[in-house]
Amino acid sequence: MKEQNYHMSPEEFRKYGYKVIDEIVEYYKKVEELPILPNIEFGDILEKLPKRPPLEGEDFDSIISDVKDIIIPGLTHWQSPNFFAYFPSNTSFPSILGELFSAGFGVQGMLWLTSPACTELEIRVMDWVVQLLGLPEKFTFNDKGGGVIQDSASSAALCAIIAARESITNSDINKYGFNKRLTAYVSDQTHSSVIKGLKIAGIGEENICYVKSDAEFKMDVSALEEKIKNDREGGKTPFFCCATIGTTSTMAIDPVLEIGKVCNRYGLWLHIDAAMAGTALLCDEYKYLLNGVSLANSFCFNPHKWMFTNFDCDCFFVDDRKKLISALTILPEYLKNISNKSLNEVIDYRDWQIPLGRRFRALKLWFVIRHYGKKGLEYHIRKHISLAALFEDIVNSSNDFEIVSKRSLNLVCFRHKKGNDFNKKLLKELNLKGKIFLSHSTMGDLFFLRFCVGQSYTEREHILEAWHHIEECSNKLLQ
Amino acid sequence: MKEQNYHMSPEEFRKYGYKVIDEIVEYYKKVEELPILPNIEFGDILEKLPKRPPLEGEDFDSIISDVKDIIIPGLTHWQSPNFFAYFPSNTSFPSILGELFSAGFGVQGMLWLTSPACTELEIRVMDWVVQLLGLPEKFTFNDKGGGVIQDSASSAALCAIIAARESITNSDINKYGFNKRLTAYVSDQTHSSVIKGLKIAGIGEENICYVKSDAEFKMDVSALEEKIKNDREGGKTPFFCCATIGTTSTMAIDPVLEIGKVCNRYGLWLHIDAAMAGTALLCDEYKYLLNGVSLANSFCFNPHKWMFTNFDCDCFFVDDRKKLISALTILPEYLKNISNKSLNEVIDYRDWQIPLGRRFRALKLWFVIRHYGKKGLEYHIRKHISLAALFEDIVNSSNDFEIVSKRSLNLVCFRHKKGNDFNKKLLKELNLKGKIFLSHSTMGDLFFLRFCVGQSYTEREHILEAWHHIEECSNKLLQ
Repeated sequence: MKEQNYHMSPEEFRKYGYKVIDEIVEYYKKVEELPILPNIEFGDILEKLPKRPPLEGEDFDSIISDVKDIIIPGLTHWQSPNFFAYFPSNTSFPSILGELFSAGFGVQGMLWLTSPACTELEIRVMDWVVQLLGLPEKFTFNDKGGGVIQDSASSAALCAIIAARESITNSDINKYGFNKRLTAYVSDQTHSSVIKGLKIAGIGEENICYVKSDAEFKMDVSALEEKIKNDREGGKTPFFCCATIGTTSTMAIDPVLEIGKVCNRYGLWLHIDAAMAGTALLCDEYKYLLNGVSLANSFCFNPHKWMFTNFDCDCFFVDDRKKLISALTILPEYLKNISNKSLNEVIDYRDWQIPLGRRFRALKLWFVIRHYGKKGLEYHIRKHISLAALFEDIVNSSNDFEIVSKRSLNLVCFRHKKGNDFNKKLLKELNLKGKIFLSHSTMGDLFFLRFCVGQSYTEREHILEAWHHIEECSNKLLQ
Repeated sequence: MKEQNYHMSPEEFRKYGYKVIDEIVEYYKKVEELPILPNIEFGDILEKLPKRPPLEGEDFDSIISDVKDIIIPGLTHWQSPNFFAYFPSNTSFPSILGELFSAGFGVQGMLWLTSPACTELEIRVMDWVVQLLGLPEKFTFNDKGGGVIQDSASSAALCAIIAARESITNSDINKYGFNKRLTAYVSDQTHSSVIKGLKIAGIGEENICYVKSDAEFKMDVSALEEKIKNDREGGKTPFFCCATIGTTSTMAIDPVLEIGKVCNRYGLWLHIDAAMAGTALLCDEYKYLLNGVSLANSFCFNPHKWMFTNFDCDCFFVDDRKKLISALTILPEYLKNISNKSLNEVIDYRDWQIPLGRRFRALKLWFVIRHYGKKGLEYHIRKHISLAALFEDIVNSSNDFEIVSKRSLNLVCFRHKKGNDFNKKLLKELNLKGKIFLSHSTMGDLFFLRFCVGQSYTEREHILEAWHHIEECSNKLLQ
């Protein structure tokens, strides 16, 4: 490789590579102290960035300086131990190194042939995940199923919807477009990405039935069955149902076994969205959440939320890979290959996802599972859940605050007793202050705060400090 | 941060980070010498990987050893200068460092609020790309449009299809599902991912019109217009057309201006797929390829193919961001935010793509553009095209081989004169030998080889050596 050709030389890469590693170390050492949400308005960062691209190449030191001076101050620090908003998107150093190797190799794993190790490592790691979580054997490659890494639970849901749509209509929609009215069933707590997936797939919002949830935000199964029966009698074709293990608002657990029985009875594809809670299945004491999963056609969860694997990494499993593949395959001449004999048995992950191309994402998940081992992962999941329980206890012992929905796993839903407006003000003030970051949701008209413990480095002291900030901020607002 | 908790400590990360950087340097130094396609059967790598996940965490040195001993020998080396197959997926050291920072920060840029710098840098860099390529001003944020980084041209096409579907039906399909027959138009050379996108969107293959291409593999515009007219008269609703700047089989350039006029006349959404060739627009001498792009509603190209930015990075532009957003938006309570006043003006990229979550991909593209500058990028594009021209000259001067379609940009389509079976054998032998990697395509019954020059480190000597291998292999087969 020559140097006078605008490329960064290998030795320069070594130098700057070390430097970027050092910068990341520094970032993790100080991230806890940074204001977690930047206090800026839309456009503030744009103003700091030149409006015109450079004609001549720039020095890499100045690029790194800009990362420190412009980018870092404009980040929301998801890797701060004081991040309790949304669901976490935690990561770990082994995962970052997996992503680094993946970027370094720069392989494109659309076909087995285009990097056999990329496909085979993913197959092996997906089968590992089935064992780690105690998922049904039918989701493995030993059986008729298999797993694949998607970018997100959104894409996993869309793939499940397309596979369901095509298998229920014998691929008629792929061939002819819609000629009957398909209906899908979610609960009023199902994640918005599933609804988005249904719209993308052309189902139409009017054909999505939002089954009501009960007092604990679990899907009402008798309401589900009634809706399906009515829709069938009305000439519609119920085809898809999504049950959630750990809803976004309150971490509610749908009655998967009962939902599964209904879906099996009426021939619906059952997809399980366990994006957040799936990681808890690592621990024996949460294996009960699996009850009924054996009736599902597909299942997904996100190691990029709670399993120390950086975004993007969603594990998506199907019980019948042929259905998924036949819905999503396409084989033009330029992707056929003539050099391998055993093509019939080969897994080409291109046919398991929406895009054609794919990164080597199995590396980081492999690194994480090997570095932590099952025991290390369990240790952290248990710690997070116990820290959430600690926070719950603190709220329960407070006079001013209350729990609004029984804690489920690592999510505490709570609010100040002084009503919606006060809680909205409190949340805004807390987040502006930048010491901790929380998000909110609603139950009917009730506005509440969500406190989710799942960042890799959150410890007992962060919980106690968070509570201190919440109380302090609340007292200030009351004055 | 404590150490006795299964996490890798920051100092361990520094140590292993340096080591992984070193391994990547070693990889690039030796990649040229590695057999470009591993000579293995499906399952060979699986056998080397334990069937059960580890209970206890493992030493990171042993993980790195396995990368070297099991993974690298199982890769197809996309970053080898001897990779001439498919389209390239090239990368560069600055891009790898951008990806490393992105993994390190671990932010999730679904909303502006969830990392303002992630959104604002992307806005700025997308506007830069419009300037660099000379795309119409309407694709910028200054105007009504804007750009977004997608994982792939597949996803960009799907987003364009959904936006087209919803804007043509006033969002009726998002609401009610299909109630009329929409038809889409591609050429017989359009990339398979567009057809896959149409199927996912529920259009149905029977509603996809494959307009024939002419002798140069360009879409026949009068055939297109006739099809649209006939379909309208038949009660169908033509809604979408995809034109290609640089088809996958032969890098053919569709007559975009004429196609655009037809689409405008009949109210179709025109999407331009310039996945590979888009990068050539950097150079003034290829700006003529833009003729007619001003009539398009959307445009995409892949810096992860030819612009030194590692997969995944597709730049997708629309002329009317409201249409895209209204087709893809969804706003549940837990994603609303109450802390910022100027939300109306804010760009939330979640509404510009299929998945909810998103990585900080703008960093690597920013690094690449700044490191190389426009001049550095142009230098390499011109070099690749001149090397393809060199290869074309060599083929033309040979007695045994022939060019099957005039070279376009950096792709040479050629074959041995001894017919299809011989060329199939030749390709198989060449790729098994592992010195170079080519792929193939067909024109009707004609099987031919594709030689695409776009890997970052391909030099004149690699072209000459490649030809040497092709001749040698061919001579051996003829004996």
